[in-house]
Amino acid sequence: MEAGGSTLGPPPPPQHCVEIHAVVPPPRRSGMQRLRNRLKETFFPDDPLRQFKGQSPATKWLLAAQYVFPILQWGPHYTLALFKSDVVSGLTIASLAIPQGISYAKLANLPPIVGLYSSFVPPLVYAVLGSSRDLAVGPVSIASLILGSMLRQEVSPVKDPILFLQLGFTSTFFAGLFQASLGFLRLGFIIDFLSKATLVGFMAGAAIIVSLQQLKGLLGITHFTKQMGLVPVLTSVFHNTHEWSWQTILMGVCFLLFLLLARHISLKKPRLFWVSAGAPLASVILSTILVFAFRADRHGISIIGKLEEGLNPPSWNMLRFGSSHLILVLKTGLVTGIISLTEGIAVGRTFAALKDYRVDGNKEMIAIGLMNVVGSFTSCYITTGAFSRSAVNHNAGAKTAVSNIVMSVTIMVTLLFLMPLFQFTPNLVLAAIIVTAVVGLVDLPAAYAVWKVDKFDFLVMLCAFFGVILVSVQHGLAIAVGISIFKLIFQITRPKTVMLGNIPGTDIYRNLHHYKEAMRIQGFLILSIEAPINFANTTYLNERILRWIEDYEAEDHVKEASGLQFLILELSAVSAIDTSGVLLFKDLRRALEKKGVELVLVNPLGEVLEKLQKADENQEILRPNNVFLTVGESIGSLSATMKGQSSTI
Amino acid sequence: MEAGGSTLGPPPPPQHCVEIHAVVPPPRRSGMQRLRNRLKETFFPDDPLRQFKGQSPATKWLLAAQYVFPILQWGPHYTLALFKSDVVSGLTIASLAIPQGISYAKLANLPPIVGLYSSFVPPLVYAVLGSSRDLAVGPVSIASLILGSMLRQEVSPVKDPILFLQLGFTSTFFAGLFQASLGFLRLGFIIDFLSKATLVGFMAGAAIIVSLQQLKGLLGITHFTKQMGLVPVLTSVFHNTHEWSWQTILMGVCFLLFLLLARHISLKKPRLFWVSAGAPLASVILSTILVFAFRADRHGISIIGKLEEGLNPPSWNMLRFGSSHLILVLKTGLVTGIISLTEGIAVGRTFAALKDYRVDGNKEMIAIGLMNVVGSFTSCYITTGAFSRSAVNHNAGAKTAVSNIVMSVTIMVTLLFLMPLFQFTPNLVLAAIIVTAVVGLVDLPAAYAVWKVDKFDFLVMLCAFFGVILVSVQHGLAIAVGISIFKLIFQITRPKTVMLGNIPGTDIYRNLHHYKEAMRIQGFLILSIEAPINFANTTYLNERILRWIEDYEAEDHVKEASGLQFLILELSAVSAIDTSGVLLFKDLRRALEKKGVELVLVNPLGEVLEKLQKADENQEILRPNNVFLTVGESIGSLSATMKGQSSTI
Repeated sequence: MEAGGSTLGPPPPPQHCVEIHAVVPPPRRSGMQRLRNRLKETFFPDDPLRQFKGQSPATKWLLAAQYVFPILQWGPHYTLALFKSDVVSGLTIASLAIPQGISYAKLANLPPIVGLYSSFVPPLVYAVLGSSRDLAVGPVSIASLILGSMLRQEVSPVKDPILFLQLGFTSTFFAGLFQASLGFLRLGFIIDFLSKATLVGFMAGAAIIVSLQQLKGLLGITHFTKQMGLVPVLTSVFHNTHEWSWQTILMGVCFLLFLLLARHISLKKPRLFWVSAGAPLASVILSTILVFAFRADRHGISIIGKLEEGLNPPSWNMLRFGSSHLILVLKTGLVTGIISLTEGIAVGRTFAALKDYRVDGNKEMIAIGLMNVVGSFTSCYITTGAFSRSAVNHNAGAKTAVSNIVMSVTIMVTLLFLMPLFQFTPNLVLAAIIVTAVVGLVDLPAAYAVWKVDKFDFLVMLCAFFGVILVSVQHGLAIAVGISIFKLIFQITRPKTVMLGNIPGTDIYRNLHHYKEAMRIQGFLILSIEAPINFANTTYLNERILRWIEDYEAEDHVKEASGLQFLILELSAVSAIDTSGVLLFKDLRRALEKKGVELVLVNPLGEVLEKLQKADENQEILRPNNVFLTVGESIGSLSATMKGQSSTI
Repeated sequence: MEAGGSTLGPPPPPQHCVEIHAVVPPPRRSGMQRLRNRLKETFFPDDPLRQFKGQSPATKWLLAAQYVFPILQWGPHYTLALFKSDVVSGLTIASLAIPQGISYAKLANLPPIVGLYSSFVPPLVYAVLGSSRDLAVGPVSIASLILGSMLRQEVSPVKDPILFLQLGFTSTFFAGLFQASLGFLRLGFIIDFLSKATLVGFMAGAAIIVSLQQLKGLLGITHFTKQMGLVPVLTSVFHNTHEWSWQTILMGVCFLLFLLLARHISLKKPRLFWVSAGAPLASVILSTILVFAFRADRHGISIIGKLEEGLNPPSWNMLRFGSSHLILVLKTGLVTGIISLTEGIAVGRTFAALKDYRVDGNKEMIAIGLMNVVGSFTSCYITTGAFSRSAVNHNAGAKTAVSNIVMSVTIMVTLLFLMPLFQFTPNLVLAAIIVTAVVGLVDLPAAYAVWKVDKFDFLVMLCAFFGVILVSVQHGLAIAVGISIFKLIFQITRPKTVMLGNIPGTDIYRNLHHYKEAMRIQGFLILSIEAPINFANTTYLNERILRWIEDYEAEDHVKEASGLQFLILELSAVSAIDTSGVLLFKDLRRALEKKGVELVLVNPLGEVLEKLQKADENQEILRPNNVFLTVGESIGSLSATMKGQSSTI
């Protein structure tokens, strides 16, 4: 983008100029140029082809390859020192990924081993395609929860486990396809509609829903509700008190406390990140040994049971596109796809900002999407960059995506040789791991910050939170997004109009209610409109402006004086206008003419000026001497004519 | 609303001031005050209680009664002269209302007499409650079309006419209830979402659909399709050519040409309004006499048939709330309610603007709503203020709502004594009357104006048009409204950022690409953000601003000089901000700090400043010397410190 003007040093102190600066129309652009600019700004705000400009063809090919496969960017400069860091961090996140993978798969009502499969293939794909250096890829709690609960609406994972698994893979395929398409079509801004406030509320609600589900494992209940909401789960828990098993509760609480303590230590001293990173694996090992030693599985403690050995079996033959559940699968893919994309991109951006590099949102979407499509072919369910594991990865000193490869290899070894060891792992320890992982999603300080800054955002947050825990995860989210968008539309429907006054001794005009020293000018009503003018607000603006005038004319001092002569509309903040908006000015001018008031426009921006000109063939609105560059100049010029008139009378 | 500042004469010429004007926080308001203000501005932008201020209790009661029943306002001052005008205009619109009422009822698949019933009771109700002096109330074409086509989706008007009629009354009841509620709840702005462009496209499409339906009557086809779309109707017309009746076609075309000619004459010379106003009744009388004289009904010309005499029978016992069609009836009520409200309010506002009085949108909604509720109890279907009849009313010199009463009385006389006369009226003349009435809804000049001013609005118009003629009336409307709202959201998602430069010799800073004489200032990058900052655009703004900086730093002259030192964000156009927006500033500041660039804010508005202060406890963003009232002052002050620094080095 070339800049219009030339450069000069700091300007000389402004002199008072008697000349008035004309408002000129913006340089002419054809409809095509304008459309091209608009599309470019919409879909390519990051201008991805910038780096190709003025390069030789060979360099262009290399850059293109590096663009598609970021591994080609950092790969050639990879050193042994970097590798050492990556091995340490890779092993650390692997020790976290194994128990979490098993736990999250259970949360999604899938066989535990699918969680490990999903921690093996997707990280490899991401290492080649992804541009974040810190993202630790694998299954995550919220997407697992949503996948499991949405599919369970139509298919029972207990009665029909094969079909459930097939639908899980198909959903993952659609989620990946959807994510990659968003990236390809450069529609990444769709995830921006999940505002900070929505996410805070949603995450907290989801964390509570997930934790409630873990009461099954922690209390040892066998007949647990299949629903997710707060009410049915609590009902189920307290109606089945006879199923509570004291052995399970005792052991569960101990491990939960241990894990929470480990988490607390790592939070207080980030240097001790390995405490919370290693605690889950340590718990799994310890609890497995305990169960095996005391054969506690015969005393009411439920265990995972036998797991198959071996790497991911292919699953492309398990994708079901023709089934009667296609709509459900598409919906599940859409919701889990958006949610996991939001988490992955947010995590990537957070750590990129910390290390001062840039993550390209659309490219990341393609990477995450392809990783899920490949995953759905290799018995993996939905994966993304997980916040907790990425934080551990970052703290453990990960330098590149190689740490993902190291983790993946570790999981491969586990899958090949260590699976029998997990046979006696009790379910309660998995429940405790999940609760510890999601407890951090309840972010009270963030909620307080939202409350302090914006009460409406807080309302959105509450809606997301209560929607999730009382209605359902996906509806809670939909409600919160709906309210956020409603607020945006609402702000447009009722734009602010503000009365300006002169700050004495200057040429500056500001809001009279904000700057108490600002003074009004006799005979002038200066209003600033602070929003684009369009069909949704023209009626309001018309009525509101006429009421400003009535209020003004009703004041005593105005009645005594010569009354209102000019209505000055300051349009600096009117960034756009449409056909209805153009009509507003015509209507206003007509209404003002009947009152003997002249309409004056100040600083209409390029697009607004253009459209007004096109619509205003008879120069009714944009008459010479009725458009000025600043309020100061308009007042100066117009009060000169007023004086001129009165002297002639 | 009290004004903040005091008044003074035109300001003295501004002196150059070395002092800098501090940006002060707006006066403190509690959360309650802010909420109250916001609600007031949202729901009571017209401040309806203003006139009650400082009045005695008796006056207040009188004003309140006048507010509810506008007839009390003008009734006491009613004179014989006014009455003469109203009688003339009332009789004129009655002559139009009788044939149109019969025709529109047929369009809605209801018995013709219901159209006359609907021209009797609702005008009386409106005369008491309505605040427009020109609105002529009765059935209208588009609402009739929608009511008929929506109900026909589930119930056949031929096979089950009683049920169809019941559903029609019930829909009218809900439409009225919905309209009145919108007014009571002061949600009138909902109709603003039908933009000018949407309405132009929708009306044109509806006119074509309505005209196509009249081919049945004009060609004399007996087996006509029950669908509304362009394709099925044309298929039906050309598959049934053997049913075409030359007698019907000949007579129909003659009357159509006569009516169109009359319309043309009145359009050219508004003084001859009575030509088009009287033509329909003249056609009805003439055609009835012709049919009766030649017994043409025995030669293939279909006639209305016997109509009952007598006034509206009560119909409250015909409202069906418990039926299986409740959802359909609710939907029909909603759609016809909104459409007829839009027409009624728009017509009322148009003529109010011509005669320079004000129509209160919310009050009108209550009046129109109650009129329909009462109508649904007295065998009337949906009514509103019709554009064509109101125009005739206005041209015929209507002074008050008494013209509606005169029309109503005329129709009462017709209902009581003249109904047998319509027995031999041929259906073809009703079809010709409808075509003539809707042909004016195709507004090509308005469409051209939309094309010239805003291409996107034109697209919306086309969607409404083709949606209506190809899909269905209600879907076409929904598509157009959806696209309009999408455009609004879209503008928010991709707000404009503009680089400003100094206009030489002044303190004014404007868009470099618009004002070619504007000059950049070394070491400063001045960006203006032209939209509220919120969750939907923070990511984009963050990336876009950083790219502006990169572009700036990549330029040659910058590399040679000392580089970028200050990023000045001009926030005059940022009318609102939310929690995500506040985070944008924190992120930006952090990113800029790493580049050694300082972030400077100019003129944050009241609400923005407040929220930034609340979120910015450590004064990271709003440091003293980093917030200024104008760009000029910030440049002046900052370049002084720059010079200071360089002189000390």
